[in-house]
Amino acid sequence: MNNSFTEIAEKLGGAGRIYLFPHENPDGDAVGSTAALCSMLRDMGKECYVMIEEELPENLRFMDDDMFVIPEENVERPDLSVAVDCSETSRFSKLKDLFLSGGYTISIDHHENEKPSFDMNYIDPGAAAAGDLIYKLMKEMDHIPSKKEAEALFAAITTDTGNFQYSNTTRETHSIICDLYESGIDISSVSTEIYENESPEKIRLICRAVSEMELLFGGKLALTRVTQDMLKETGTVMSDAEPVIKEIRSVRGVEIAIVLKERGPGKVFVSMRSKSYASVLEIARELGGGGHQKAAGCTLNMTVDEAEEAVLKAAKKQLES
Amino acid sequence: MNNSFTEIAEKLGGAGRIYLFPHENPDGDAVGSTAALCSMLRDMGKECYVMIEEELPENLRFMDDDMFVIPEENVERPDLSVAVDCSETSRFSKLKDLFLSGGYTISIDHHENEKPSFDMNYIDPGAAAAGDLIYKLMKEMDHIPSKKEAEALFAAITTDTGNFQYSNTTRETHSIICDLYESGIDISSVSTEIYENESPEKIRLICRAVSEMELLFGGKLALTRVTQDMLKETGTVMSDAEPVIKEIRSVRGVEIAIVLKERGPGKVFVSMRSKSYASVLEIARELGGGGHQKAAGCTLNMTVDEAEEAVLKAAKKQLES
Repeated sequence: MNNSFTEIAEKLGGAGRIYLFPHENPDGDAVGSTAALCSMLRDMGKECYVMIEEELPENLRFMDDDMFVIPEENVERPDLSVAVDCSETSRFSKLKDLFLSGGYTISIDHHENEKPSFDMNYIDPGAAAAGDLIYKLMKEMDHIPSKKEAEALFAAITTDTGNFQYSNTTRETHSIICDLYESGIDISSVSTEIYENESPEKIRLICRAVSEMELLFGGKLALTRVTQDMLKETGTVMSDAEPVIKEIRSVRGVEIAIVLKERGPGKVFVSMRSKSYASVLEIARELGGGGHQKAAGCTLNMTVDEAEEAVLKAAKKQLES
Repeated sequence: MNNSFTEIAEKLGGAGRIYLFPHENPDGDAVGSTAALCSMLRDMGKECYVMIEEELPENLRFMDDDMFVIPEENVERPDLSVAVDCSETSRFSKLKDLFLSGGYTISIDHHENEKPSFDMNYIDPGAAAAGDLIYKLMKEMDHIPSKKEAEALFAAITTDTGNFQYSNTTRETHSIICDLYESGIDISSVSTEIYENESPEKIRLICRAVSEMELLFGGKLALTRVTQDMLKETGTVMSDAEPVIKEIRSVRGVEIAIVLKERGPGKVFVSMRSKSYASVLEIARELGGGGHQKAAGCTLNMTVDEAEEAVLKAAKKQLES
């Protein structure tokens, strides 16, 4: 059972030092939501910080504003810890001890969690983004977002909804954006910060992986690979390859997109997405992995060539069923 | 002076045969707006068609629904012609005679036009898309959009606002989308139709042009070229190269992006975009072209190499000023 925003608001109001915890490898929603919440809490006189494990990705730093901190060993304990866009300590494992060192724990999240375990929890899988929930909490607290807070919430929502294209987007999502416009947001500058801030190396890696895609099974399956050699040659890291799968799925007629990511010698992570009817979850399960119908993955302890063979065999069954 | 939607609604109500005219090379807004309007007018019992010069782009055909027609020589004259997402016959030159053959002309457009010349005109450059205007006209006519009409309007608006990221997007845009949700739109399937429907050849051309980009002036300028040879080798046409400029502008630190498009021997179209402060209009003007501050172009009668030299000389001035 969820707690109410009224209860959460009351608890926040009573605390002096509050630390916020987004999940590791924070995305636009995790950063935008915590930035907006932190700013509001500071406005209320709280000593508030967002605790992170590593520096923010460059395209999200415009929201930093001296709120995001990689904590030192001897950092003071908080009165209250709030996990945002996640609801388990495993999602920020390096900061688990600091999170638990305070007297009280809260989660505000939009990911499914059947057994939320913090002192208070607000989990709404129907919300498109954690940013939606932070906006509602602000409303409950009669706080009108500043321009910067509204821009952070816009960043949170636009990134987690694929710019309002994913099926998690609802009427309410657009209604919240209407309200955010009242704060005078400059969406085009936010969007430029987030999306026009790519390293040339990353773009070259993506192009190379996409150029090398194979179209199989009459064009229903697109497959490509990102090897350690490719990373070395382009000066990139594996996380730079993240957009590749969306690019190859965008080919006309492709139903299943697969990217083989070589993690190390004899270790391949298989990332899979389907477009409309196929279940990549079934393919992943057959290979010992998991996920959702339209986005799933598995790790295979073999070479990239062997992984390709294994994956295509499992995919064939799915496409023929 | 604009006419009112009441006047336009009355005129539409009195006509029997109505032809709609989007601009040539119609984009998502032109197709979505005319599809929604045509569907409503048919619902009112009108004999209505959308007249086009060439087949619709494949990713927009899901909106066709037997409404879009390439007219034959002996097609009957309309009672009324409506230009949508344009307000001048030069925007659909091959169909000009048919447009004028009816008794009456109307424009509904969101592009600037200081001297609208049709019998009735509704031009609102403040609207993000022509789709916004068609929605408002429907509202004026007490017509609640069907699911298909609402999806066509969503397609119109999402494409013309760069998925709600461009500065033309307003609070009202999102408010209209809220209303469209009432019709039960499935935005994710619309989005898949529009954006995940690319030919593999097009994707390979884009990758190749992006891979070959040069970063100049300390990374402030990104430049690449699309030659006739590249089109031949990848089996594509020049319009497939359209996304290249946005891709190369998205590189961190790039302020000006330039794509040299070889139209034929000794003829190059120069496409230019800026990210925030630079004026590509000034560069274009110096070379005999035109456009806007952030998006401009010019045609140069020289080889691609010569064009590169000329453009870089003009760009240098702009970046140093």
